[in-house]
Amino acid sequence: MQNGSLIRANFYHIPRANLETVTDYLGLRLDGEGALHRQLYRALRHAILAGHLSEGSRLPATRALARDLRLSRNTVLLVFEQLTAEGYLAGRTGSGTYVASPLPEAMLAPEALRDAPPAATAEPRWSRFAHCIRRYPPAAPRSTAAPRYDFRYGAIDAEPRLLDEWRKRLGRAAQHYPVDYADPRGDPGLRAAIARYVSRSRGCHCTAGQIVVTSGSQQALDLIARLLLDAGDRVAIENPGYLGARNAFLNAGAELMPAGVDTEGLIVDQLPATARLVYTTPSHQFPTGAVLSLRRRLALLEWAQNREAWIVEDDYDGEYRYEGRPVEAVQGLDRPGRTLYVGTFSKVLFPAARLGYVILPESMLDTFAAAKWWTDRHTPVLEQRVLADFLDDGEFERHLRRMRKRYALRRTALIDALRRHFGEKAEITGTQAGLHLMVRLKDYSSGGLKRLIDAAREKGIGLYSAAPLYLAPHEAPPCLLMGYATLAPEEIQKAIEHLASIRISETADAAGG
Amino acid sequence: MQNGSLIRANFYHIPRANLETVTDYLGLRLDGEGALHRQLYRALRHAILAGHLSEGSRLPATRALARDLRLSRNTVLLVFEQLTAEGYLAGRTGSGTYVASPLPEAMLAPEALRDAPPAATAEPRWSRFAHCIRRYPPAAPRSTAAPRYDFRYGAIDAEPRLLDEWRKRLGRAAQHYPVDYADPRGDPGLRAAIARYVSRSRGCHCTAGQIVVTSGSQQALDLIARLLLDAGDRVAIENPGYLGARNAFLNAGAELMPAGVDTEGLIVDQLPATARLVYTTPSHQFPTGAVLSLRRRLALLEWAQNREAWIVEDDYDGEYRYEGRPVEAVQGLDRPGRTLYVGTFSKVLFPAARLGYVILPESMLDTFAAAKWWTDRHTPVLEQRVLADFLDDGEFERHLRRMRKRYALRRTALIDALRRHFGEKAEITGTQAGLHLMVRLKDYSSGGLKRLIDAAREKGIGLYSAAPLYLAPHEAPPCLLMGYATLAPEEIQKAIEHLASIRISETADAAGG
Repeated sequence: MQNGSLIRANFYHIPRANLETVTDYLGLRLDGEGALHRQLYRALRHAILAGHLSEGSRLPATRALARDLRLSRNTVLLVFEQLTAEGYLAGRTGSGTYVASPLPEAMLAPEALRDAPPAATAEPRWSRFAHCIRRYPPAAPRSTAAPRYDFRYGAIDAEPRLLDEWRKRLGRAAQHYPVDYADPRGDPGLRAAIARYVSRSRGCHCTAGQIVVTSGSQQALDLIARLLLDAGDRVAIENPGYLGARNAFLNAGAELMPAGVDTEGLIVDQLPATARLVYTTPSHQFPTGAVLSLRRRLALLEWAQNREAWIVEDDYDGEYRYEGRPVEAVQGLDRPGRTLYVGTFSKVLFPAARLGYVILPESMLDTFAAAKWWTDRHTPVLEQRVLADFLDDGEFERHLRRMRKRYALRRTALIDALRRHFGEKAEITGTQAGLHLMVRLKDYSSGGLKRLIDAAREKGIGLYSAAPLYLAPHEAPPCLLMGYATLAPEEIQKAIEHLASIRISETADAAGG
Repeated sequence: MQNGSLIRANFYHIPRANLETVTDYLGLRLDGEGALHRQLYRALRHAILAGHLSEGSRLPATRALARDLRLSRNTVLLVFEQLTAEGYLAGRTGSGTYVASPLPEAMLAPEALRDAPPAATAEPRWSRFAHCIRRYPPAAPRSTAAPRYDFRYGAIDAEPRLLDEWRKRLGRAAQHYPVDYADPRGDPGLRAAIARYVSRSRGCHCTAGQIVVTSGSQQALDLIARLLLDAGDRVAIENPGYLGARNAFLNAGAELMPAGVDTEGLIVDQLPATARLVYTTPSHQFPTGAVLSLRRRLALLEWAQNREAWIVEDDYDGEYRYEGRPVEAVQGLDRPGRTLYVGTFSKVLFPAARLGYVILPESMLDTFAAAKWWTDRHTPVLEQRVLADFLDDGEFERHLRRMRKRYALRRTALIDALRRHFGEKAEITGTQAGLHLMVRLKDYSSGGLKRLIDAAREKGIGLYSAAPLYLAPHEAPPCLLMGYATLAPEEIQKAIEHLASIRISETADAAGG
């Protein structure tokens, strides 16, 4: 009775004096939600299902019921018609409306369908896939406000100028919003624009026909894993490496084989012979920032060809290169076609745009297109068209050049500040490209680093350990992953100055280890 | 030489008189694509990789090369720097630039990386999932023009008024285009709007917290199959039934168990005891159009509860009901929470919007949200916000009422025309709801129907057999699936009149079987 008002129903065979009793007996309760006829419908249906109105019992005349419920007669008629159509009620010529008799047997049987409160729903027997998903849930949304100086990796600095232009063009493109399903491979204009873009800027060697547009690079990784891996298949994956890739492969049931990384990137000659696929981030290894040397790029291709294995090249932030020009993609060196090149626009545009792509060997295209169709038909076309426009008229690359300058200043500010305040005690890697650095503060053990992170948070500085990116986090070296994309140079200087002033006791460190 | 122009490179240690030879020897070929420095970069890299420029050989001075190639010296310097950074070239102080020596061994080894034309890429060893995908590729895009009178099912009639309003609001919403990742469960405003909408219009019983917004209902089906089914799990599926669902379950490795359908819909008491999940379309069985009776709805819930099985209720076009009010969803009757209700806006708005949703039992929500995050993060928010707006201010339901009237006229036109021209020889089912009818023309066997379809196509009438929707198409009764959404009543009348005039010979019928 707490929710909703009690309706006084005067069923005509019950004397008016008994009204209270009748109401309780009928249990007719309008819940106050939505139109009156829907409320009456639900109340009557509930009364029938709960057994308050028994099989074969006669309902009052619509006119009488309408009067007593203070509803219009049409409302009552509508509800009676509906319940009759559904089999709850039956009309007998000349003698009014009755609760159907017999009511379907099944209606009265299952206890839970009657008056019981909604049961706590049973825990399903989850699939293997679901068990993986449940083991690695996504990071919980931040429950507290972001720190004043947040070195979180993965954030980007949205340029107001680009955002304005993007919104303006989206608004225009919306005027041609399409009606029908589109090509599962993606908008033809965007595919052609991407092919041109990756050729000129990333050294890829491909045609528009090899490209499938995905809803972000995560979907590309998920499709790759589903299409190329069965449970138990072995995947070599950079360690440390990208969680989104790790999870995509785990979700497909793959057995992960850690592949080491040094200053030249993935250590190719340690790749396991049994891996069917290797996941790598050659232009800016995530998270160490190493750039895969040419020697290793070629060795990697040879390895893949000899083993008949596939290379998944994730070029997640290769656009942001500060020293020299961007290194050519492995895909561009690959003549036999063993490379699946995954790209994203989340880093250069906005994560919200949900636009990524994969460049495939010819032999895979039709199957990927079909898989895309059977999983979500196609990525929405509106953003695709605007992006094609951006790529074709040079707006994208102009934005990229502006942002490269902006991020380069932030990178320099962070390196300089670390040098100034930590000197040789800060070991910095990954400076050539990307939007983050990997930093080892030599004074700190793993336990000490944890306490430093906590102490920094108190001072409004958000620091993040790289340990979760290792397949065995407890064996990870004590490193920080420092994203600098959202902080201005002077903020970075101030934050590192604050950070340097924090003192963590060695005793606690020994205890905390 | 066909693609791109040959560049006459005069390397300084080669006499000018030998220019032609040199050019051939170096094989330096600018491909004419993109900026000149990229062209030179590719040409030099190719010359090195192909062995035309051998290890340790000295390159001409940048000034000389620039002159001979008619490029600016800065261009050449940039390219040399880049190739040096990548390890192709090395500078020796005071003595110019050389091809690196030794070049990485691997560079010279794999034949395929050198001058060979791109190999036809190898066919991968596909996963089990990929094998399913390849067995049931999506229907090829129509290669010929649509017939003049097309009774194809699945098309909708885009209302210009709605489309205008949708575009206008999308344009406005684009001005607030977000930057960051969003909630994997969907836009909070849309989830709340959907919860209210399905409660008032479909009799569902849910909160916004039970809803996950998906990229169309196909993605909801794919997620359901992946999360609840392992290879070999049994799924009862309506036969005939929806191909999108069949494929989602097959793709997850499920064993399909056909569940019969009659005029009351799914025959619940023939459901196999071992099925872990049953897929059903209660409000308008696809394709027969039967409405699941109340008796069976309740029996279905009881069956699911007793077997601890899940009901996937796909309410793909329940909004279009012409006789009486829409029947309540099974989900609304379900107290124990065994139902996953799948909805889509492809039929009432536009397929291109890629918006669907699933209403889940509470116990499943977190896992579905995590799976959504790890597969594609989230559905783009722009369309979600506009749809929330549509639902909340009543625009959606006003549109629905207008379209219901429009489609009702088309339905009536089709029924009347079939009655007039075929009389008792046309057996029509599925008239109460949806956007199509199922029609059996009693004069035609399967072979005859095939020939009728061909003959009709010649007259500009597009007819479609229902056979592909049966698990065993060759055992299917000879029926047509007639979508009427895109045809005006007078077009329908004309088409059926033409159709009735077609004569298919019995002899050919016997032969064609």
